[in-house]
Amino acid sequence: MIHGVYTDVAALGSAPAGEVRVRGYVRTSRFNAHVGFIELNDGTQFYGAQVVCDLDTRPGLAAAAKYATGSSLDVAGELVFTPEARQPFEIRAASVTLVGDCDADYPMQKKRHTLEFMREMPHLRVRTNTFSALFRVRNCVSMAIHEYLQSEGFMWVATPILTGNDAEGAGETFGVTADSSAGDGGFFGKPASLTVSGQLHVEPFALAFDRAYTFGPTFRAENSNTTTHAAEFWMVEPELSYADLEDDMEVMEGLVRFVTGRVLERCPDETAFFNDRIDETHTLTARLAKTRDTDFRRMTYTEAVELLEKSGRDFKYPVKWGLDLKTEHERYLCEEVAQSPLFLTDYPKDIKAFYMRLNPDGKTVAACDLLVPGVGELIGGSQREERYGELIRRMNEVGIPVESLSWYADLRRFGSVPHAGFGLGLERFLLYVTAIGNIRDTLPYARTPGNMVF
Amino acid sequence: MIHGVYTDVAALGSAPAGEVRVRGYVRTSRFNAHVGFIELNDGTQFYGAQVVCDLDTRPGLAAAAKYATGSSLDVAGELVFTPEARQPFEIRAASVTLVGDCDADYPMQKKRHTLEFMREMPHLRVRTNTFSALFRVRNCVSMAIHEYLQSEGFMWVATPILTGNDAEGAGETFGVTADSSAGDGGFFGKPASLTVSGQLHVEPFALAFDRAYTFGPTFRAENSNTTTHAAEFWMVEPELSYADLEDDMEVMEGLVRFVTGRVLERCPDETAFFNDRIDETHTLTARLAKTRDTDFRRMTYTEAVELLEKSGRDFKYPVKWGLDLKTEHERYLCEEVAQSPLFLTDYPKDIKAFYMRLNPDGKTVAACDLLVPGVGELIGGSQREERYGELIRRMNEVGIPVESLSWYADLRRFGSVPHAGFGLGLERFLLYVTAIGNIRDTLPYARTPGNMVF
Repeated sequence: MIHGVYTDVAALGSAPAGEVRVRGYVRTSRFNAHVGFIELNDGTQFYGAQVVCDLDTRPGLAAAAKYATGSSLDVAGELVFTPEARQPFEIRAASVTLVGDCDADYPMQKKRHTLEFMREMPHLRVRTNTFSALFRVRNCVSMAIHEYLQSEGFMWVATPILTGNDAEGAGETFGVTADSSAGDGGFFGKPASLTVSGQLHVEPFALAFDRAYTFGPTFRAENSNTTTHAAEFWMVEPELSYADLEDDMEVMEGLVRFVTGRVLERCPDETAFFNDRIDETHTLTARLAKTRDTDFRRMTYTEAVELLEKSGRDFKYPVKWGLDLKTEHERYLCEEVAQSPLFLTDYPKDIKAFYMRLNPDGKTVAACDLLVPGVGELIGGSQREERYGELIRRMNEVGIPVESLSWYADLRRFGSVPHAGFGLGLERFLLYVTAIGNIRDTLPYARTPGNMVF
Repeated sequence: MIHGVYTDVAALGSAPAGEVRVRGYVRTSRFNAHVGFIELNDGTQFYGAQVVCDLDTRPGLAAAAKYATGSSLDVAGELVFTPEARQPFEIRAASVTLVGDCDADYPMQKKRHTLEFMREMPHLRVRTNTFSALFRVRNCVSMAIHEYLQSEGFMWVATPILTGNDAEGAGETFGVTADSSAGDGGFFGKPASLTVSGQLHVEPFALAFDRAYTFGPTFRAENSNTTTHAAEFWMVEPELSYADLEDDMEVMEGLVRFVTGRVLERCPDETAFFNDRIDETHTLTARLAKTRDTDFRRMTYTEAVELLEKSGRDFKYPVKWGLDLKTEHERYLCEEVAQSPLFLTDYPKDIKAFYMRLNPDGKTVAACDLLVPGVGELIGGSQREERYGELIRRMNEVGIPVESLSWYADLRRFGSVPHAGFGLGLERFLLYVTAIGNIRDTLPYARTPGNMVF
């Protein structure tokens, strides 16, 4: 019953005209006394295939009129190319067989649903245009990240999710417990939490293999409800040996431009959909092409603060050298000043992490953020402090017990080399390339405070 | 200082002879009055480069004798091809500069360490031959998994790590808590645990996109100390629409053979190392080539039980139709009977999960395990029960509250289609292709009961 000769809808465009057999779900269906049209989507590409039932020549096909939206069908017929029509081809049905019918309470009917409504049904929203496009782009972006980094000599490493060592203060952590405790101190003999960043764990691999990256889930237990924060999200964190901030930014820019190019090349239907239906200004495709083709701008934090102070804007949060920038400041800088992705560099050391390399001025560190229009911060990166003495001094300064990270400090005692790295949030990148406004709609099953569907 | 023109050791083999500049760590170093040899490894390939210091012509290079194992160096010199020698090329040094020296307590000295000793220092063991080879193969295997599945039309999906819905009983779970609780019921408004399998969450994606797979970390809170179990491990779980167990096994076999072939092709130095230094019988390479080139054998569970009963072997655990097979039985079947990877199919329903499709005999399900020599079970898979009534009947039979998985049952109400899938443990696959004996040595940072280093 199953091993038949079927054609994917994605393959129809380049198939020879003639007899074909396809399977898929009914997206829409309309029948009159003479003809019926079924839009059949099999999930192999964004657009489905139009199935035409000519009831005058094949009156038996009238039975197909009762197959509702959401049903799965097995269709045999003739593939006909229709270059003059809106659809480049159609299938003139010889037979239409029901595989699985669809109960009348199917929620994904033709009428338009809000994204909020669909968030409650992640198992079904994937059958709609918006989420079909979104998860295709998510797959494309993820594979392009691997492709670019592998081609640039980075080795993928699965840094651990469970850790006893999240001392870097990147955010609030989730604790982990087990009923089957192995004695005192819990299952692992000490408290375990979910990782907030794989960076510290990936550094030893970059130092052993020249270049390495982790790409996996990351967790923040922050009770904040914003459109850009989730409790569980995916992050790619590359780390490179013999590198300073300049080398680091080259990889960041190379990665963002390559992946953006892959989206435009591999997901043209999806990008056009987001441009026309999601992006209010309908400029998404043009913005992405510009990102792919144009060098990113660069500016120091100090220059940025001066620009913000002179802007005459009435920002909600204060601007002053030494304070962290907020999303409103970041978006002003990249959307209105640079009108492009923008690197801000050399932040005050007191608002950045202990492992970032101190600049010769003694006040700033060799760190950068990449800001992009519509989102704000997309990437944070830095050269790492490779000097043992400086690292220990800084850990003492910020109150991190050296013994808790002696293994990390070890890397500076055994053949230390200059190195750098960064972290890019996959879902924020998806917000950027799809113009979707809420991170909850970029995750297969979003987890946010108070929300965990399935 | 950093943006120099350097060559990776991996690129030296195809570089033109002449001036080169390389960087890396001292693996070994030996000097006499006339000449010094430094084995320099930069992590870009398994083997390092031999640096030759001719002290008669360049007496200043004598200073390089003091750079200890583990130090990082910057070497300029002449690349010379030596086809008659053991190494295909060497670098005749013009200058050797210290980048970072190495403290005398560096644990990865030349003498051989036990794998147990090195487990306590995952940040440094990556600089040894065994773990350099292991993590290169891990990267190769992981990328080959993506490559094969993407080329076969599978879409990658990040199923969630945090779940409120692990009712399938695949194993004991870790619980998750947060200090910053969002009201009653914890951070998410209900209890959260770490996923034991992404299968239930990937099925909706396979049904929407024809084929989908999840590839990510998975957790089992079982207090068992074996060489094949870890508390945190990576699993790939593909799922395909319009498929029965036969279609499913085709993908499993295709995947295992493709990935094994990629390891042989892309990691020849590493495979040779494992064959010569780790595999006691020195037959690893031959076994992998056979796996790549030969059809896998197949046998029903019922046939396997008969064979085991007739074997005359004194097994530790009993063999009887209806009982689960243990590793000793599985290894006997694939190592001694089949002498190849072996599919066992059609297991009794009572020892398999509720979602597996009931066979017409009413006693067995359309499930299979793939057994491989040296490891035992590598893959478990099945056709899924796509019939709503059968699924509900089975859930009631095994005591799973239907309301807890109503979303999963929904998929059988809204255009249900026959589908199938499987789960392959990445680390077990690594045991198979490297002949390493303990899963703890296949994980960047292993987590097992009582153990969580860093």
